Amino acid sequence: MKISARNVLRGKVKSVTAGMVSAEVVVELSGGNEIVSVITKRSAEDLGLKVGKEVSVVIKATNVMIALE
Amino acid sequence: MKISARNVLRGKVKSVTAGMVSAEVVVELSGGNEIVSVITKRSAEDLGLKVGKEVSVVIKATNVMIALE
Amino acid sequence: MKISARNVLRGKVKSVTAGMVSAEVVVELSGGNEIVSVITKRSAEDLGLKVGKEVSVVIKATNVMIALE
Amino acid sequence: MKISARNVLRGKVKSVTAGMVSAEVVVELSGGNEIVSVITKRSAEDLGLKVGKEVSVVIKATNVMIALE
Amino acid sequence: MKISARNVLRGKVKSVTAGMVSAEVVVELSGGNEIVSVITKRSAEDLGLKVGKEVSVVIKATNVMIALE
Amino acid sequence: MKISARNVLRGKVKSVTAGMVSAEVVVELSGGNEIVSVITKRSAEDLGLKVGKEVSVVIKATNVMIALE
Repeated sequence: MKISARNVLRGKVKSVTAGMVSAEVVVELSGGNEIVSVITKRSAEDLGLKVGKEVSVVIKATNVMIALE
Repeated sequence: MKISARNVLRGKVKSVTAGMVSAEVVVELSGGNEIVSVITKRSAEDLGLKVGKEVSVVIKATNVMIALE
Repeated sequence: MKISARNVLRGKVKSVTAGMVSAEVVVELSGGNEIVSVITKRSAEDLGLKVGKEVSVVIKATNVMIALE
Repeated sequence: MKISARNVLRGKVKSVTAGMVSAEVVVELSGGNEIVSVITKRSAEDLGLKVGKEVSVVIKATNVMIALE
Repeated sequence: MKISARNVLRGKVKSVTAGMVSAEVVVELSGGNEIVSVITKRSAEDLGLKVGKEVSVVIKATNVMIALE
Repeated sequence: MKISARNVLRGKVKSVTAGMVSAEVVVELSGGNEIVSVITKRSAEDLGLKVGKEVSVVIKATNVMIALE
């Protein structure tokens, strides 16, 4: 699948924490940065997410803000 | 300002392309990855965004998806 | 690519209208419904979107609201 | 209420799964497709969502991505 | 229409600026605050938005962040 | 931090309800309106959110819809 979302970054799952509906997934990017994602618990199960698994994080450009420190 | 958004990553502006309402901003993260953001043209002007400027990209965790290749 | 987004629906591009930064894409789903998407003009070009092309629309579940008439 | 969101599709609730804060609602569209929504548990209660209820799903165009298989 | 979005606030349109695809709409809330919205140009036209018109702004709770100064 | 998000409104926390992954935070704006936010439980803890605390709500303009009653 090729997607319109402009941000697709490779990494490895560092942790998965599931609630009843949502799951929080932490991904360590190749560049060293960490990205936190909240998806449905069902998606986390369907994708078989577990620590160490290679994944991509996908982010639509309109969901990225810019800040100055 | 400290914000609830879980993803705040440092980088430098690589390009700014403005339309009439929106602007597309490409940021090069320290780790080497690139992130594309679409914000309002007005925000890009208010923040004085230009090539080389140090910025952070800010992304709420619910806006991050996970994909398997 | 298999993605965490829970909504992936097949259809055909009905129209593409590009501005300087954004593009509006109308997709006719197999079931008869129409879905309107706004992506970056650059993504529309990268995906080679044109009338009649077979595509999927992808929507994260947290971006779907429910309403009563 | 008439809303700026470009996507308003009719359907029937197929399932509701509630956590402590969020609820996952599956809606079967008239055209046959299924849409998954995550809203607050409180909203699901306020709207009286239950299996078989007629609802609309509402999606802002900027939250719709396009993918090629 | 009754919607799952938890935030529906009354106000008056203060300005509308249209590009080719998007439009920026500024709304002055009854409480005195101002809210900026970006919708499609087509939606702004369909709703007949113009200065002084009474509208509601609608925001899904997952799209609201919290910050400390 | 100065952020591209066009909507930054001051208020006080009225309630915090935490699930396992998400937390619902109600903020009373100075102008009298109430805003509901859903963030991660972890963010609510990191920010030390509790009833009465002064906070800002932050909303990206593309996440604001307009409706007519």
